[in-house]
Order: sequence, then structure tokens, then C-alpha cells
Amino acid sequence: MKIIEGGICAAQGFKANGIHCGIRKNKSKRDLSLIYSDVKCSAAAVYTTNLVKGAPIAVTKQNIADGYAQAVICNSGNANTCNANGVEIAQQMCELVAEKLSVSASDVVVASTGVIGEILDITPIREGIPALVEGLGDNSEYAAEGIMTTDTVKKEIAVSFEIDGKECRMGGIAKGSGMIHPNMATMLVFITTDCAVAPEMLQKALSSDIQDTFNMTSVDGDTSTNDMVTILANGKAGNTIIDKDDDNFKAFMKALNTVTVYLCRNIAADGEGATKLVECRVEGATSKEQAKIAAKSVICSSLVKAAMFGSDANWGRVLCALGYGVKDLDPTKVDVSFKSAKGEIPVCVNGAGVPFSEEIAKEILLEKEIEILVSLGDGEYSATAWGCDLTYDYVRINGDYRT
Amino acid sequence: MKIIEGGICAAQGFKANGIHCGIRKNKSKRDLSLIYSDVKCSAAAVYTTNLVKGAPIAVTKQNIADGYAQAVICNSGNANTCNANGVEIAQQMCELVAEKLSVSASDVVVASTGVIGEILDITPIREGIPALVEGLGDNSEYAAEGIMTTDTVKKEIAVSFEIDGKECRMGGIAKGSGMIHPNMATMLVFITTDCAVAPEMLQKALSSDIQDTFNMTSVDGDTSTNDMVTILANGKAGNTIIDKDDDNFKAFMKALNTVTVYLCRNIAADGEGATKLVECRVEGATSKEQAKIAAKSVICSSLVKAAMFGSDANWGRVLCALGYGVKDLDPTKVDVSFKSAKGEIPVCVNGAGVPFSEEIAKEILLEKEIEILVSLGDGEYSATAWGCDLTYDYVRINGDYRT
Repeated sequence: MKIIEGGICAAQGFKANGIHCGIRKNKSKRDLSLIYSDVKCSAAAVYTTNLVKGAPIAVTKQNIADGYAQAVICNSGNANTCNANGVEIAQQMCELVAEKLSVSASDVVVASTGVIGEILDITPIREGIPALVEGLGDNSEYAAEGIMTTDTVKKEIAVSFEIDGKECRMGGIAKGSGMIHPNMATMLVFITTDCAVAPEMLQKALSSDIQDTFNMTSVDGDTSTNDMVTILANGKAGNTIIDKDDDNFKAFMKALNTVTVYLCRNIAADGEGATKLVECRVEGATSKEQAKIAAKSVICSSLVKAAMFGSDANWGRVLCALGYGVKDLDPTKVDVSFKSAKGEIPVCVNGAGVPFSEEIAKEILLEKEIEILVSLGDGEYSATAWGCDLTYDYVRINGDYRT
Repeated sequence: MKIIEGGICAAQGFKANGIHCGIRKNKSKRDLSLIYSDVKCSAAAVYTTNLVKGAPIAVTKQNIADGYAQAVICNSGNANTCNANGVEIAQQMCELVAEKLSVSASDVVVASTGVIGEILDITPIREGIPALVEGLGDNSEYAAEGIMTTDTVKKEIAVSFEIDGKECRMGGIAKGSGMIHPNMATMLVFITTDCAVAPEMLQKALSSDIQDTFNMTSVDGDTSTNDMVTILANGKAGNTIIDKDDDNFKAFMKALNTVTVYLCRNIAADGEGATKLVECRVEGATSKEQAKIAAKSVICSSLVKAAMFGSDANWGRVLCALGYGVKDLDPTKVDVSFKSAKGEIPVCVNGAGVPFSEEIAKEILLEKEIEILVSLGDGEYSATAWGCDLTYDYVRINGDYRT
């Protein structure tokens, strides 16, 4: 398996586009994206666990209940959530794009992201769809841009892998930035592949993978109302269809995990206002669950996040976050180190501070990718979580988001 | 019952002091506080639920296990937590002050607040205690200053109430600011009263009261390692001792609640970097528990907090926080209003936005005390939680706390 150029159009048979249709005021910002496969795809998705759900979630759930889809329409600038007519508008989005593409409206995945609680006007979408469809092509980049909100960089990746001697490809795009928190999907991610996978195995792969990827990523602790991860598999690679948990399935899972970990890391690194990717790796836990809770508690702590912004080796805050987050913690067995491209520095052994050079620690923490390494010293399980620092810009961006 | 001048020295028989002994570099900042009763007191306390606990917690627990205490010693500038010799130092603090006061070391409550994981040097404390004791007097203010960390204002209150025809008084001081989050005590609070209360009823009163006060207060979601609320009752008011759950106990509870709600509101309003007190009142819940979870979820949301900083009536974030925080929520029954001294404005009815004047909403949200009023429309229970906005200064303060 190797990482290749491109994004969601790397797999055979997929085209994409993204345009500015007018939902957003800024005309240089694309706000409507489309992904299209020239044949019907196995489809799977996971959704936010927030009980306040965007209307598109309900419509998408219904549309892929049969395990198949052929297109994805997504707008930014408005979440179409907490609106009386939200479901109606989401359905209209599906119908308009289905008509133009000559596919069934029930084979369209629909998603929205942006402000909650403002009516989504269908007019610019209706007027934009002809140009959106006409421009379909090798335009993963445009689609990636069209789903961005406060994201500062587009997030896309593609990989190549082999199943049955056939080259398969998989690509993904993501939007993240704010309201990013486990569980679940807490961002918009669209993945395409030409690998042939039965719908139930596609869902199994996705539902399993997110436990260690998107569910371990947090920017601000707010689980969004709208988010979903979807994957479309159109089978054009020509491999024997994956319909059971065999070696081919494992190879597929590995490719999927490469795509999702890349997107998680990039979502965290581009968290609202973030200047740093913060990765917490926890080892020595008594269970997988304990390891995951520990890693998430550290990356979610506002005080740890602010310390990372200040490149301050304030490991006491890591201990504090472990102490309130993890049940059955034995603080006297906990070790903590900080690590980056500049090296690694142990700061706490057996729950107590050890002498260290503040100068070297600072140099390590001034890097753009920081690892917080925690050993609980109590077992064999490990987990990794991804987050970012808490900065002035997070406050600026969210202090006046709507106006 | 009425609010009176003063703090922890308002009740008969209590003296206090606070000095700069040298734990902190800034010589104008008091860093060592003492509270003393001239007779032994019934004593009760509640402690942080963080599994990483400061050494003083262990020593205090042991010292008041018999239900009695006579003095409180507290330093700021160092939390005496995650240190190999922490318990030894905390015990020495008790011994040094006990010797000077001619009380038993096992009747001293000890507390520390500040940086985690740095050895607490006993030298300045040892050298400071003589002056600290000699200066004991009507100095609640000095004691309140001595326990402050990043607090910008001291927090003290006193009330007068009647039990059995006798005037009783109660006063409290608090330090809050950062690492403030339920559960539990998540701040340092010392309360004194001359009311006569048996130790077990004092503990019952405190343990019950905090469920709706300190456990409903959050600044940044980080539950501290060191915090405690203690109350000393020396009986000098001369009332018949409260030793059962009768009308006198209820009157005592009411006085206690007045003191604790005042301190909670002031801790929230003076949260690190805060410019506003944010109070969330939830009504119409199916249970007390649901109401409390809903109120806490709203005041803990980084996005809600940032919107309050920007005086932005972004009610969608309130809905979002309810949706991920509250089980069994019916979003279609939720109403939300914003309220302040400038008026009240409904922004969401039955889970959907209603037209409102952004101008009036802004005027309401520009005030220093904001209420977010939520009705879940599903039952009879209610709860209130206190928090603050998320600001640039929170990031500045915590980005470089140690250096």
C-alpha cells in the first residue's frame, strides 16, 4: 500500500466538483460540492451521536438504508439544522442533483455544515447545480474546498493498495476545524474507493475503524450536530467482491485506516485557531477503554491545550487530566514525556516530577507536532488521540462566528 | 437572614491573617493564610474527585476524621501535588502552626494551591508562621488574598441568621479562577460560623449543599487536584446544638446556601480571563439529574463560552450542547432565551429559530451577567449552573502559567 497523488477522484469512476453558488457571501469561497460515481456504489456511513441532528443526517440515513448510493451533495455556510423545513430542503437538494445526474434521489448522500438554526435557502443551490454537474471532473480539490468552513487548509489524501492482484485506490476529503469531538463522526468526511466491497462489510469496516480514528480526535469538546463519515465503493477495480472478514478485508481495513488517520491528524492540526498538532499516546493501561479515555482526557484538557500553545512543559496538567478522566488510575505509576522532531524529554516518573532542562523542553514544544507520551504502568493496552492547542485565534474565530 | 459586612471573622471567636512569606516571587502578593478559632470547632469538608490528589488533601482528611478542627493553614504559589515528599511537608505545615497556636497538629486543616509537581519548600513557611500568627485579628481580607492564584478579586461574604433566638453568623472566603469544574470541590473555600452544629450534621449540610452549588460551577472543565470546601463551626453563638434534621437545620442550610451561591457566582465571574458571568437555568426537565446535566453541558461548551465573549446570540450552540450532553432529549420541545439586566429575548422555540432583533440581542449580551434560559418542555425539574465566557485572556494566562 502506498500514498499517491490526488483525493476522491483517484479511484476509477469518480468525479467531483465544488463551486460558489451563493450560500456564503464571500464569492471567492466555494460553498457547494458534489461527488459522483458513474456506477452505483456500496455505501456506508457513521453519524454524530448528538441528539440534536442536522436535517441532512435523517435524509442520508434513509437514502443509504439499502446499502447503496451514487452521489454526494454537500454545502457549507449553513448547517440546515434546527429549522422547521430542514428535511424538506435536504430532500430537495437530493432531488435537484439526482435529476441533473439522471440517478435516483434515494441514491444521493446529502450533508450540510455551517451555522445552526438559520433557514437554508434552496434558491442558490437550485441555480448552482447545473454548473456544479457540468464541471464534474478530476476536481477533488474543488470539492474539498467547498466543504470547508473555518478550515484553513483543504484535507485530502489518496492511497493505492492491492486486492486479489488488482490495484485498488481509495481517496478521502475532510472538513473539520470546530465542534470536533468524539463521539461520533464530528466532522464531514467523504471517502471513495474503486475496490469492490459488499455494503455490510463496508459498514463493518467503517464502524470499526472510526473507534480508533475519528472517535479519538477532539478540537474543542463540542460534538457537532451535523457530522458524518461516508464511504462509497464502486467496484471498478475489478477485484472479487469483499463479502467476509478475510485477508482481503484486512488489507482493505489497512488502506482505510491510512486514509482516516491522515485525515484525523490533519483535522486536529487545522483545528480552529490551532498552531500545533498534539498527539497523546497512552501505554500500559489495564484495558483498551482505559487507554482511550486517558488519551482523550489529556487532549481535551483546556489547560493542557493552553500549555501546548505556550510551549510550556506543564506536565502537572497532564497528571491532573488523567486524574479526573481515568477511573482506577494509580497516579504513583504514571510516567510522562514530551516528544517532537527535536527529541524526547521525560518530565514525570512514577507520578512525581523529575529534574529536566526547561530550555530543552521548550525547544521540543516549540515544534508544530507534539507527542505527549503517557505510561500508566499498569497493563498492556495502548491508544492514541489527536487534538490541538488552544489559542487566541480559537477565541477570536468563535467569539464572533456569525457576524 | 441577611448579608452583613465582613468575611470569615464575622462569626464570634474567629481570627484570620494572610502574609507574604516568600513562596511567591512577587513580594506584594500574600501567599500564606491562617484561620483560627479560639475554641475547637465541629469541622466538615468535601474534596476534589480527581484521583491525582494534592498531599494536603490526605493530611486534612486524616486530621478532621474525628469531626473537629481549630485552625486552617493554606499557601498559594505551589499545590504541593505530585511530589515525593508532599505528605511530609503538609504535615510539617500543620505541626509548625499548631505549635505556635498551642493546638493539636491533628486539629489543623491544611491546603495548598498553585503549580503542580514542584517541591514545596517548607523554609519560607516555617519562617513566616510567627508573623502570621502574631498578626491574627479581624483580617478576613488578608486571608482571602493569601489563597488567591490567578484570581483578580478576593471573594468573601458574611451573613447573619437566627437559630433558637440567638444571632448566628457565617462567613466564607474562596479562591477559584482556573481548573474549576464539577465534581467536586474544584476550588478552595473556607467557611466559618459561630452556630453550634454537631460534626455529622455539619458534614450533611455541606455534602448536600455542594450538589447544587460548587458542583454546578465550571470555568474550564478541568477538575483540580487540590481543592476542598471546609466549614468550621465553633458554637460561640450559644444556640442549642443542631444535631438533627429539624427546622434549625433547615435555617442553617439556608444561610449556608446563601454563602455558597454567592461564592460560586463570584468564582465563575472571576474565572481565568472571564469578562462575564454566565448562568444557565434549565426548566422542564424529566428529572433533577437531567436538569443539572443540561445546565452544565451548556456552561461547559467552549463554543457557547466563546459566543458569550463575543456577545453573539448563537443559540444553535446551546442546542448543540444540549444535544450531546443530555440523554433522552426531545429537541423539538426545547425553548431558549437570553436574559440580562437589559431584558430578555426568546431566540428558539420548539427546537427551531424564531425571528429576533440581533441589535437587541447584542445589547442584552453585552452585559456582565448573562442568563441562558432553557426549557426542555418535558417535565417539572429545574437546575442552575454557573460559568463564564472563554476569552483571549484565558489563553494568555494559561499559555504560560509557570514561566
